[in-house]
Amino acid sequence: MTATDTPVRLQAVAAPDQPDVTPALEKLYRGFEQELLVPLWTEIGDLMPAHPRSRAVPHLWRWQNLVALAEQAGEIVPVGRGGERRAIALANPSLGGRPFATPTLWAAIQYLMPGEDAPEHRHTQHAFRFVVEGEGVWTVVGGDAVPMRRGDFLPQAGWNWHAHHNATDAPMAWIDGLDIPFQYVTEAQFFELGRDEISDAERVTPDRSRSERLWGHPGLRPVSVAHTTPGSPLLAYKWEFTDRALDDQLAIEKDGYGGTVEPGHAAVRYTNPATGEDVLPTIRTEFHRIVRGAETAPVRETGSSVYQVFDGSGTVTVGDTTWSVTRGDMFVVPSWEPFSARSEAGSTDSDSRALDLFRFSDAPVFEALQLNRTQKDNA
Amino acid sequence: MTATDTPVRLQAVAAPDQPDVTPALEKLYRGFEQELLVPLWTEIGDLMPAHPRSRAVPHLWRWQNLVALAEQAGEIVPVGRGGERRAIALANPSLGGRPFATPTLWAAIQYLMPGEDAPEHRHTQHAFRFVVEGEGVWTVVGGDAVPMRRGDFLPQAGWNWHAHHNATDAPMAWIDGLDIPFQYVTEAQFFELGRDEISDAERVTPDRSRSERLWGHPGLRPVSVAHTTPGSPLLAYKWEFTDRALDDQLAIEKDGYGGTVEPGHAAVRYTNPATGEDVLPTIRTEFHRIVRGAETAPVRETGSSVYQVFDGSGTVTVGDTTWSVTRGDMFVVPSWEPFSARSEAGSTDSDSRALDLFRFSDAPVFEALQLNRTQKDNA
Amino acid sequence: MTATDTPVRLQAVAAPDQPDVTPALEKLYRGFEQELLVPLWTEIGDLMPAHPRSRAVPHLWRWQNLVALAEQAGEIVPVGRGGERRAIALANPSLGGRPFATPTLWAAIQYLMPGEDAPEHRHTQHAFRFVVEGEGVWTVVGGDAVPMRRGDFLPQAGWNWHAHHNATDAPMAWIDGLDIPFQYVTEAQFFELGRDEISDAERVTPDRSRSERLWGHPGLRPVSVAHTTPGSPLLAYKWEFTDRALDDQLAIEKDGYGGTVEPGHAAVRYTNPATGEDVLPTIRTEFHRIVRGAETAPVRETGSSVYQVFDGSGTVTVGDTTWSVTRGDMFVVPSWEPFSARSEAGSTDSDSRALDLFRFSDAPVFEALQLNRTQKDNA
Amino acid sequence: MTATDTPVRLQAVAAPDQPDVTPALEKLYRGFEQELLVPLWTEIGDLMPAHPRSRAVPHLWRWQNLVALAEQAGEIVPVGRGGERRAIALANPSLGGRPFATPTLWAAIQYLMPGEDAPEHRHTQHAFRFVVEGEGVWTVVGGDAVPMRRGDFLPQAGWNWHAHHNATDAPMAWIDGLDIPFQYVTEAQFFELGRDEISDAERVTPDRSRSERLWGHPGLRPVSVAHTTPGSPLLAYKWEFTDRALDDQLAIEKDGYGGTVEPGHAAVRYTNPATGEDVLPTIRTEFHRIVRGAETAPVRETGSSVYQVFDGSGTVTVGDTTWSVTRGDMFVVPSWEPFSARSEAGSTDSDSRALDLFRFSDAPVFEALQLNRTQKDNA
Repeated sequence: MTATDTPVRLQAVAAPDQPDVTPALEKLYRGFEQELLVPLWTEIGDLMPAHPRSRAVPHLWRWQNLVALAEQAGEIVPVGRGGERRAIALANPSLGGRPFATPTLWAAIQYLMPGEDAPEHRHTQHAFRFVVEGEGVWTVVGGDAVPMRRGDFLPQAGWNWHAHHNATDAPMAWIDGLDIPFQYVTEAQFFELGRDEISDAERVTPDRSRSERLWGHPGLRPVSVAHTTPGSPLLAYKWEFTDRALDDQLAIEKDGYGGTVEPGHAAVRYTNPATGEDVLPTIRTEFHRIVRGAETAPVRETGSSVYQVFDGSGTVTVGDTTWSVTRGDMFVVPSWEPFSARSEAGSTDSDSRALDLFRFSDAPVFEALQLNRTQKDNA
Repeated sequence: MTATDTPVRLQAVAAPDQPDVTPALEKLYRGFEQELLVPLWTEIGDLMPAHPRSRAVPHLWRWQNLVALAEQAGEIVPVGRGGERRAIALANPSLGGRPFATPTLWAAIQYLMPGEDAPEHRHTQHAFRFVVEGEGVWTVVGGDAVPMRRGDFLPQAGWNWHAHHNATDAPMAWIDGLDIPFQYVTEAQFFELGRDEISDAERVTPDRSRSERLWGHPGLRPVSVAHTTPGSPLLAYKWEFTDRALDDQLAIEKDGYGGTVEPGHAAVRYTNPATGEDVLPTIRTEFHRIVRGAETAPVRETGSSVYQVFDGSGTVTVGDTTWSVTRGDMFVVPSWEPFSARSEAGSTDSDSRALDLFRFSDAPVFEALQLNRTQKDNA
Repeated sequence: MTATDTPVRLQAVAAPDQPDVTPALEKLYRGFEQELLVPLWTEIGDLMPAHPRSRAVPHLWRWQNLVALAEQAGEIVPVGRGGERRAIALANPSLGGRPFATPTLWAAIQYLMPGEDAPEHRHTQHAFRFVVEGEGVWTVVGGDAVPMRRGDFLPQAGWNWHAHHNATDAPMAWIDGLDIPFQYVTEAQFFELGRDEISDAERVTPDRSRSERLWGHPGLRPVSVAHTTPGSPLLAYKWEFTDRALDDQLAIEKDGYGGTVEPGHAAVRYTNPATGEDVLPTIRTEFHRIVRGAETAPVRETGSSVYQVFDGSGTVTVGDTTWSVTRGDMFVVPSWEPFSARSEAGSTDSDSRALDLFRFSDAPVFEALQLNRTQKDNA
Repeated sequence: MTATDTPVRLQAVAAPDQPDVTPALEKLYRGFEQELLVPLWTEIGDLMPAHPRSRAVPHLWRWQNLVALAEQAGEIVPVGRGGERRAIALANPSLGGRPFATPTLWAAIQYLMPGEDAPEHRHTQHAFRFVVEGEGVWTVVGGDAVPMRRGDFLPQAGWNWHAHHNATDAPMAWIDGLDIPFQYVTEAQFFELGRDEISDAERVTPDRSRSERLWGHPGLRPVSVAHTTPGSPLLAYKWEFTDRALDDQLAIEKDGYGGTVEPGHAAVRYTNPATGEDVLPTIRTEFHRIVRGAETAPVRETGSSVYQVFDGSGTVTVGDTTWSVTRGDMFVVPSWEPFSARSEAGSTDSDSRALDLFRFSDAPVFEALQLNRTQKDNA
């Protein structure tokens, strides 16, 4: 038990909704402090607000800065047992310097040098990888080597053994998303070290993993394979399918039918093919495509999100803040902050590409506990 | 947005599993700080432990002290709009002085003077009341007046309008349990004020609420009443049923059959009669009876619990700490700390009463997200 | 394989929606017959009607006749291994002389002489007992002796060992409901013989079974007892609770609140306390109370029901048929036939008793497969 | 109500487990007949067998015969309002001449002449199409035109408007599977006529339907499209995906890993991408590939199946019957009859093609009601 005892401190103040400051009240508050008690009436505004007021703030991280620092780390920080991963996490500026992008979500850039391995371990934290650029790393999950390339999404449900190896002669960066903060605050975590090195038999570089060959066919499941563990048995959602699904939605919209979220805004959710539910019990992942010139209506949701710009450029607005964004940039949307995005031509991007946004959020937690709410604001 | 920006501070240290302290590393860490980044390798021990290591500590609050302070508050702190409730919460000594009994659970003593009302409001936080002594207060839920007496348990699912009124000429204390800390960290909270005063028609004092008359018959549900909101439609679980259920389990054990948790240890879970699940989406509530001389085997569970001693006396052990306990005493069991209890004759309690423990925990959160684990230790 | 081959017989007819009768058509139909084929166009009216048109007809069986014949059977037909039970089933007049009350439901009177036993067996068919009069028989389920008295309802989920013994010196009759026809048409049945005699230890006559002591407390479940088998773990729903629940609904109605199905019509559904669902996977059971002078609105539902009059008297209308009914009378409501009931003073019943109806139906089958529909007709 | 009253007929017989034939018994049985009652003891062997003994028998229909008769029907039987479809159903020889392949399943060949339409209607019966050869017909479901080609599988959940049109100058045959017998025995059916002609806008011939463009991407669902109706929103499962999924399983087996049902036997189940469950609430559909020389182990299951040979040749064994089969042949497996298949070179098929079997069954009914059992027999 390493926590430091922090004494209760209560100050009687002259304020609306507060009892009159009297010697009796001061005496009462000293009694509370001595017994480690805090009254509701001094805290209710903070604890029970009219709507969520996040401790996190909207913030943007530039991809070029993330990559530059990851490259430096690649030069001087080894990957190995103990540190486990060369992962560098976004720390929301109002969350106490902790590596928490939001109160529930971890987002990091991970970096592997040519030929490097990250050792095997497993943990209850649910994870995924998403690749905004590059290729050459394979994630080995339970002995199944899964390739990672630009646009690929790899869910990694908790308690599966996993390692990475870079099979090429170029470094590679990608992002990791996990529910580390959520499991930290609820105190659910378990962790085990695995083998220090994966076997040569696992050091293969197949184009498709076994999981994709078993579970990656639309609407088809293997009859023989029971699937009872939490999280998706499909370990990679390849870019070609995501890209085509989004284009298909926009083509249907052009034909005059529904399918998009709103005009010019297509979106898919990554789902567990065995259940149709989110790929991870605590994390929702989606991909949004906003055609050039289109703009999304502001939406508020309970729970927080992290976005990464995959392609195109434009502006995004979170609460009162608006940023111009381009490939790789990452930003957070705290709980109940309105979010909208506009797809535009960027300074270095004059072609016809849509604004493509990868998103992850803690929505499954809220839905499982029936705490989810959504509100569409007027633009 | 009132949160204060806390800068990231990273210190390069000479330690196992840490990179060598070099000027390059120092420069890298300064870069991380500037970009609001934190590496995994400095934090992994804290964030990804081998098993949960709670930030909370075991702690005990004596009922006589709680009641004495609540009585003082009754004299000098009015109940009304704004402060809303004369509720005084347990603040775990290692959770920063916040009114959090555990990282996810709120536990408070609430106190109402003769003739007093607590005004109507509603909130997404799930709540319950449990009465260790006294009677005379009715909780009015959606216009249904529910009596509260020693041993009664009243769940109060989120977003239901509710008020209290003390219809007698004696003060009354009881405990409130809520998921305030959980909804605070996940940022899911909504709150609305209701009417300042309940109507005379609601100021009735029936012996049974309408909810009990509709839903309080074993295995029988009203055909006409749909029940789709989260949480139990049964607003009171009266002591006589709980007491009898526990005695029945012990009688079956005496007859040579199963039914108890372990020898001399009976336990019931309060459930939603419409679903058989926990009464609240985020809070599990149970009642345990340990016969004189019996002892429970130590158990570790993910997630935290708060207990109140309802009757009898004995000793309870949480982790390395053991307390003698008696009526009304409250204590917390942090995540993964082993817990056991022994029922004994107390100094002021020489009769044959069993040790009766009321318990609430955050187990439904863990089960909904498939994060629950239990381990029985050797005694 | 004992089924008899029945040749396909197709007749070309001059009728609307039928092809012209020509030699070519006759030749085609002979070809169909030879190959064991039947076209849709000759059968569609029967197979795909605009709404369900039941093969069953409404029918009423008088309790006094059922009891008289059961008594005769008691005199001359022994109960024992092979025949297994002295059960005499309702045979809907339009279901081919089969012992099927409706296309999916079995309803029988069972009769046990003083001191008699019915031997142990188990089967996948789901069953229940309901007692309209008398007492003295215990059903032993998995070694747990469950008493049966007027008004008691005893569900008996499939594949549980069970036997009966009459511990008194009077005969006793009750009704059995099972899904025998449903499992016959779907061909799901398994059956095993158990011990020829139950042990002396099981020949006890407790007032409450162990199942009631564990599961018969409102909203409370034993913490220690997992319940994973289909069907309710509560083996008896005693009359006192059913009676009180119905009176409570009517009292709430008098107070000006909802709770009844319609004015003067209270109803409860027997539910599995572990899940809140129906007590049996294939059979729904309910108890309806219609106060003197009240009348229910006609309702059509997919699926069929069997009713038994428990108390009071009145008239019931099924489709175009109306009967005066009194205690013990049984009748069937085929799929989609409108049903209504009126509570009246009967010739031998001039007091104030309500019309009490016990009902069972195949509704859970329809709901599990999303085939359920209900339509309220204008009275 | 058109059903004919069939009188109950009971014969007292001298047989084991039957009461002695006496004048009293004869009198009792006449009483039963008069009151429309049937005792359990004369029927128990038939109604409650030790295991399912199907009323259906194994039977095989040759595709060449089915097609020849369908072609004749194409010449002389028009398709139009009233008859609705030129569908010719398999009639199991022991099911009374009814067009029931098994007690719960309908299987038919449907045939559409060049340029022909089948008019729009909808029904609660769940349906699918499977194409063993040919192409050129589009099924229009709710205005969405879905192409049909060899190997394609098209589920059609109940209560969706649908029509067919043959857009080519060649006739086309395919098979329909429905739960007509199941809904007939449970009496759940509703049916409505739609428009007599589909619009020109629907008479399009797209290569992919809108449903495929929205839902046909592996593990991806449209964020905007709620899916709450029963059955799959994906209206076609194209052959290329099924074929590849089967080959992938066999390739994984060759690599030394699991994935196939048993050596040389790959199988996929068609699933609803929104839920991971069966495509239809009452019908399971699968595709099995058995490599040349391989043989499946005999399996018994509760519930019945219909198979169609899609490709290859071999022998299939159902109970005591073995047939040589080739493309298009259809056969039924009654409940609890052991089934196995062997892939062999046929007389007209000397190449290396595997034995490909399309299968549908009533398994979801059994699973929803927890009545499913499976038993692997020793070969």
